[in-house]
Amino acid sequence: MINWKNLDSLDSYKELQNTKEVNLKEVMAGENGAKRVKDYSIKMAAGLTFNYAAKKVDAEILSGLDKLAKEAELADKFKALYEGEVINTGEKRLVLHQLTRGQLGADVIKDGVNKREFYVNEQNKIAEFAKKVHQGEITNAKGEKFTQVVQIGIGGSDLGPRAMYLALENWAKQTGNFKMEAKFISNVDPDDAASVLNSIDVAHSIFILVSKSGTTLETLTNESFVKEALVKAGLNPSNHMVAVTSETSPLAKSPDYLAAFFMDDYIGGRFSSTSGVGGAVLSLAFGPEVFADFLEGAAEEDKLAANANIYENPAMMDALIGVYERNILDYDCTAVLPYSQALSRFPAHLQQADMESNGKSVNRFGEPVNYKTGPVIFGEPGTNGQHSFYQLLHQGTDIIPLQFVGFKNSQAGWDVDIQGSTSQQKLCANVAAQIIAFALGKDDENNNKKFEGNRPSSIIIGEKLDPKALGALLSHFENKIMFQGFTWNVNSFDQEGVQLGKVLAKKVLAHETEGALKEFSDLLNI
Amino acid sequence: MINWKNLDSLDSYKELQNTKEVNLKEVMAGENGAKRVKDYSIKMAAGLTFNYAAKKVDAEILSGLDKLAKEAELADKFKALYEGEVINTGEKRLVLHQLTRGQLGADVIKDGVNKREFYVNEQNKIAEFAKKVHQGEITNAKGEKFTQVVQIGIGGSDLGPRAMYLALENWAKQTGNFKMEAKFISNVDPDDAASVLNSIDVAHSIFILVSKSGTTLETLTNESFVKEALVKAGLNPSNHMVAVTSETSPLAKSPDYLAAFFMDDYIGGRFSSTSGVGGAVLSLAFGPEVFADFLEGAAEEDKLAANANIYENPAMMDALIGVYERNILDYDCTAVLPYSQALSRFPAHLQQADMESNGKSVNRFGEPVNYKTGPVIFGEPGTNGQHSFYQLLHQGTDIIPLQFVGFKNSQAGWDVDIQGSTSQQKLCANVAAQIIAFALGKDDENNNKKFEGNRPSSIIIGEKLDPKALGALLSHFENKIMFQGFTWNVNSFDQEGVQLGKVLAKKVLAHETEGALKEFSDLLNI
Repeated sequence: MINWKNLDSLDSYKELQNTKEVNLKEVMAGENGAKRVKDYSIKMAAGLTFNYAAKKVDAEILSGLDKLAKEAELADKFKALYEGEVINTGEKRLVLHQLTRGQLGADVIKDGVNKREFYVNEQNKIAEFAKKVHQGEITNAKGEKFTQVVQIGIGGSDLGPRAMYLALENWAKQTGNFKMEAKFISNVDPDDAASVLNSIDVAHSIFILVSKSGTTLETLTNESFVKEALVKAGLNPSNHMVAVTSETSPLAKSPDYLAAFFMDDYIGGRFSSTSGVGGAVLSLAFGPEVFADFLEGAAEEDKLAANANIYENPAMMDALIGVYERNILDYDCTAVLPYSQALSRFPAHLQQADMESNGKSVNRFGEPVNYKTGPVIFGEPGTNGQHSFYQLLHQGTDIIPLQFVGFKNSQAGWDVDIQGSTSQQKLCANVAAQIIAFALGKDDENNNKKFEGNRPSSIIIGEKLDPKALGALLSHFENKIMFQGFTWNVNSFDQEGVQLGKVLAKKVLAHETEGALKEFSDLLNI
Repeated sequence: MINWKNLDSLDSYKELQNTKEVNLKEVMAGENGAKRVKDYSIKMAAGLTFNYAAKKVDAEILSGLDKLAKEAELADKFKALYEGEVINTGEKRLVLHQLTRGQLGADVIKDGVNKREFYVNEQNKIAEFAKKVHQGEITNAKGEKFTQVVQIGIGGSDLGPRAMYLALENWAKQTGNFKMEAKFISNVDPDDAASVLNSIDVAHSIFILVSKSGTTLETLTNESFVKEALVKAGLNPSNHMVAVTSETSPLAKSPDYLAAFFMDDYIGGRFSSTSGVGGAVLSLAFGPEVFADFLEGAAEEDKLAANANIYENPAMMDALIGVYERNILDYDCTAVLPYSQALSRFPAHLQQADMESNGKSVNRFGEPVNYKTGPVIFGEPGTNGQHSFYQLLHQGTDIIPLQFVGFKNSQAGWDVDIQGSTSQQKLCANVAAQIIAFALGKDDENNNKKFEGNRPSSIIIGEKLDPKALGALLSHFENKIMFQGFTWNVNSFDQEGVQLGKVLAKKVLAHETEGALKEFSDLLNI
């Protein structure tokens, strides 16, 4: 029987509060610093490594985090989740996104269906469909091949798949796996759809409509937008559209689509990149084998997350260091800083995955909590960020913990040697330099040129950003978020906070407003 | 004589600390709320309006902010700045970006040069060059027209110009002002340059190299990258490249460029969108008249910022409400939320402009300050953000002040009517609804569905995002940042915090490392 307890009721948390804060300027200096880099490292899947040497931890604090992991029963809670308990208590749902890429425990049977088999079956349907498109067996009405794919979705149906597509686009081009260009329409702003439609060849495009419920305002509106464009171009929309939705949605059995691929209520939008939500667009863009490799990387990383030993579990370690920073050191934000242009939208995806999951003020029983939960997540790729907001990270009045990601090799392999080093070496040199600059700082008699240092960071290092590494990276952060949610005792899998705005927007459109809302509606000409 | 004093030494600040926090759930309800929306509004340039009804202010607090503005001598400091005093004391430089678009006071003569004339002259040189490119008088070696333009720059030479280009791209296409597609190379990650070069027709591309000093590592590296690609394609790089730099930089008189356009040390990178840094790429992409309109919008907004009356000065009001939120209400972040897909990178630009300017811990005399300065800035366009991180904004444990932007009309004018409303109406309905949802919240017997409300926001409303409106919007935020820097008594115009990382990265590349830095360098294979 699992115990769901608030963080501040745990003895190990109280013990942690009595530990002494680590001074990175001391521990990261000299040979001791070198030893920390070697010791504070955990192997991940797909050749990645999680290094937390530059975090404010030492043997005592790590031992405290280990106790916390055990007292909070993190491994047991993860097991309950992947074996099909109702972990999303608010919506009374199972949480099964890990099953879309592997199976860590006992079979999960729900309503007589083996869920792993269901997800694999949908993945296979998508693979078959994608192959037929690539081979020219599924074509437009004129029998011509489709060359572009456009995903219509918002939030989890957009950010994750878009970030994953951008992460692999150059890799796919370089390795001969690039099949079709993908574009994305998400915003209800009509300029979003107009811009994408103006940039593509609609006659040779497949549109993927993604909405679990089949009722998302933005997505249905953009579907109509696209259908009008297709009709205007003399095309039959049903020859150009597929749906990714739940079997119970109005879209599921509609004749308006070439095909329908299914997910279910147990896959949250922000955790759906490894389901058909990511699967359809990534399989069409890069081929189903690439998508399968991506899933394999995620599945391997999931296995590591099931380990109850925090010293061997990178996601659990990352999560608990984050809780320590948030609740004991009182840091309010976390910056995600990938030194890889291909990960340009990965921080935006994590921003959703993290802030929508753990931006909660009540525990899983609906009782207000007396401690801070999810932090603000933001970030941009390095080295770009270095010439932007890093000023505040180095010398601002708040300390922001940093999450670096770096790869030894570039994706395209095209490089130049300038002043004795390649661009890739310069990129890697910069991320190494930043970790030390943040940790150690630099004294100066001019205060304006002084760096306080003692600013914590971790880094995930990989060989090259390929499908497996990307899957492992995604799984790491999904599991980190889950473990933090368990520790804070919140339900990370609902999002009631998005409802009120929807209700009020409907009132505005129905002109059922008064007071300030009516005034703002008037100002905006609605 | 201006007095530069720390915020916490001002009497008006101490008075403000004794005011009572406004409860938005009370003041924004009913007819009082409607009245606030009408009253708490300031006209901006180009048809924009700044509305702060949903901020936690009342007559008493506003009066306190007015006193603070006067005691901090904000209008006088701005006048000193635009009339050429050495406001950037750390680097002993004038701060003249407003002069690139207009002149608010006395002539600024420096080293015998009238600086306004200098900037206008460079703008004219760019306009002439752009016209010749558009008319086919300046062509590639084969006499063919250039069709694409690629900006090579990083930080301020990238984020602002890129955000402005994206903001006007669809508007230009719709209004017949679209001349050339623009792309941007910034990151030292070789995959960035490779990806852009793979996506363009190099034989018909002009590259703009932007670096004030002519020594920026990333930019020079990417220049070499591009030059190699041009040579490989059998082209002479000097027929394809122009430079935007300072007259004293090594690039200024080089025969390697078709032309060189100048800025100077008095234009900070993050404030350079209205100088040649933005001017060259925007004039080539949309024509010099569009760029001139953009400058006109900024110049008109600058005029409003020179008004000592805070109730008529939107940038000053916005700035001081922000200081009140940061230092008295103790909020650590600000989210920028444009309801316009065209402003997709505007938050990233403001993230630099704000965090690099005011992320400081020492005052302009190099003395540590005892209060918080610049907040973390992040954001994404609505409605996308609503399906992402808004969960935390509505129900998280921290309150994040919000800065909305919305326009009554779309840019492309292409829209669909679904369920009785257009997409543009849905977009506007959503932003109006969000303001009220954040301010008033909603009670519910289920705590998980309860919204505490009392979360402050402001909104800038415009007719349509066109060049003038964009210029006004940019100016508003630049001036807001400036006024906040004055109030915090920091130097907003240097960025010493970016130096240490550069120094250490050089050491890594020279293999002059030891301890933890050597270990990380080894892990990254450098």
